[in-house]
Amino acid sequence: MDDADAGPRDRIQSIERGFAVLLAFDDEHRTPSLMEIAHATGLSRPAVRRILLTLRHLGYVEPTTGSHWRLTPRVLTIGQHYVTSSTVVAVSERHMSRLVEETQESASLSALDGDEVVYLARVPAKRVLNVSATAGTRVPAHATSMGRVLLAAAPSDFVERYLVEPGLAPLTPHTITDHGRFRAELARVREQGWSLVSEERERGLIAVSAPIRDHTGQVVAALSSSSSTGRTSPEHVERHVVPVLTRIAKEISAELGA
Amino acid sequence: MDDADAGPRDRIQSIERGFAVLLAFDDEHRTPSLMEIAHATGLSRPAVRRILLTLRHLGYVEPTTGSHWRLTPRVLTIGQHYVTSSTVVAVSERHMSRLVEETQESASLSALDGDEVVYLARVPAKRVLNVSATAGTRVPAHATSMGRVLLAAAPSDFVERYLVEPGLAPLTPHTITDHGRFRAELARVREQGWSLVSEERERGLIAVSAPIRDHTGQVVAALSSSSSTGRTSPEHVERHVVPVLTRIAKEISAELGA
Repeated sequence: MDDADAGPRDRIQSIERGFAVLLAFDDEHRTPSLMEIAHATGLSRPAVRRILLTLRHLGYVEPTTGSHWRLTPRVLTIGQHYVTSSTVVAVSERHMSRLVEETQESASLSALDGDEVVYLARVPAKRVLNVSATAGTRVPAHATSMGRVLLAAAPSDFVERYLVEPGLAPLTPHTITDHGRFRAELARVREQGWSLVSEERERGLIAVSAPIRDHTGQVVAALSSSSSTGRTSPEHVERHVVPVLTRIAKEISAELGA
Repeated sequence: MDDADAGPRDRIQSIERGFAVLLAFDDEHRTPSLMEIAHATGLSRPAVRRILLTLRHLGYVEPTTGSHWRLTPRVLTIGQHYVTSSTVVAVSERHMSRLVEETQESASLSALDGDEVVYLARVPAKRVLNVSATAGTRVPAHATSMGRVLLAAAPSDFVERYLVEPGLAPLTPHTITDHGRFRAELARVREQGWSLVSEERERGLIAVSAPIRDHTGQVVAALSSSSSTGRTSPEHVERHVVPVLTRIAKEISAELGA
């Protein structure tokens, strides 16, 4: 089956619409009305109504007060199927707690999805009060150490397209936005086998990442350790965290058959 | 819109089939072939093929070697929509790290989905090496402190149906399986405002939960703290963890307007 270029006729529009309605629920539309969903998705009210009834039958949405709707926790089960079906996540999670123990910093696992980095798993360090980066959270690739490790392993035409769209948006005054400097940085990451990014995504945030490879040698995820500039410095991270991180990343890769 | 009894004609079959294919990927079928998915879902091969092409277009699946397929990390984004659209999760997460700090034990937030308990969020204690219970994981309600808190707040006909199906399966020799004893235990949980369960779900596991209420006073989630019998005892948990847990559960409920 090689249908990389399968056209719209091979797809099923109502499935696409079903997901559009499911994703219309977000932090700005926590309990939208049928009308609001119709507006957000561009679908007709009768179409949205039938989709909501279908999603309700499947247990993913439920009516709340008025003619408003909300997602149910069953939606989380869908993502859980990714976690249990992913060998990379299963193997890495066992090693991530060890990384937290040895570094006293939060550990994350992530992968590229399109242009963005998606967190696959996260083990917070006890003292970290911020647990907002849960699995499924998306962040820009260019300004994070995870994204740099993943982009460093991506085909160069992918990177060149990234430079144009979405481009190197400055998230702080420290974000690398020059194309030449960015390409040089990726070459350095490829060479040294890890990436350290300090305050390019967010003021006060410092993180270091290393690649996870599967049995084909391909980079399939980034393992990272993150901290704050109030607690540590790039020099300290390079001396004390990088050796532990790269060792554990290699152990995970070895277990995946790299 | 009051379509509680909307019939099959109001639903869209292809959406139901789309989710059936997406959920056919699990720990036993990590990279299933088109044939295997057809077998698992009872759908025809041409139907599965069109659904896979649709899900691929949406970015949720991708072909791997041979005619096999796998889920992509984008699947996690669907669950993330539940997390960001849920006020309960957003408010609770901020308090859960404090619970971990004060108790030195893992904290979880969960809700009922049908007969089962679903983890909505989890903050592991640093020393806990087991991070397997991620958001979306499902566990039986009757043998867990989270489930007892949620069942104690459920309508009695719901509980009576639970006793028949799925019933009180013994997960360890300590699991309460007698209907009378179970009803009495729920009454006690309702009375005292928390549930402590030791080794009924799994040998060595001890956990305590308290209800989270929303602005209508309804129990919408359970907050829990879990540990192992090797580190603590039911007496110690009751004396030292229950006061912290019930206080933080009340603070979360107050923030939700209870």
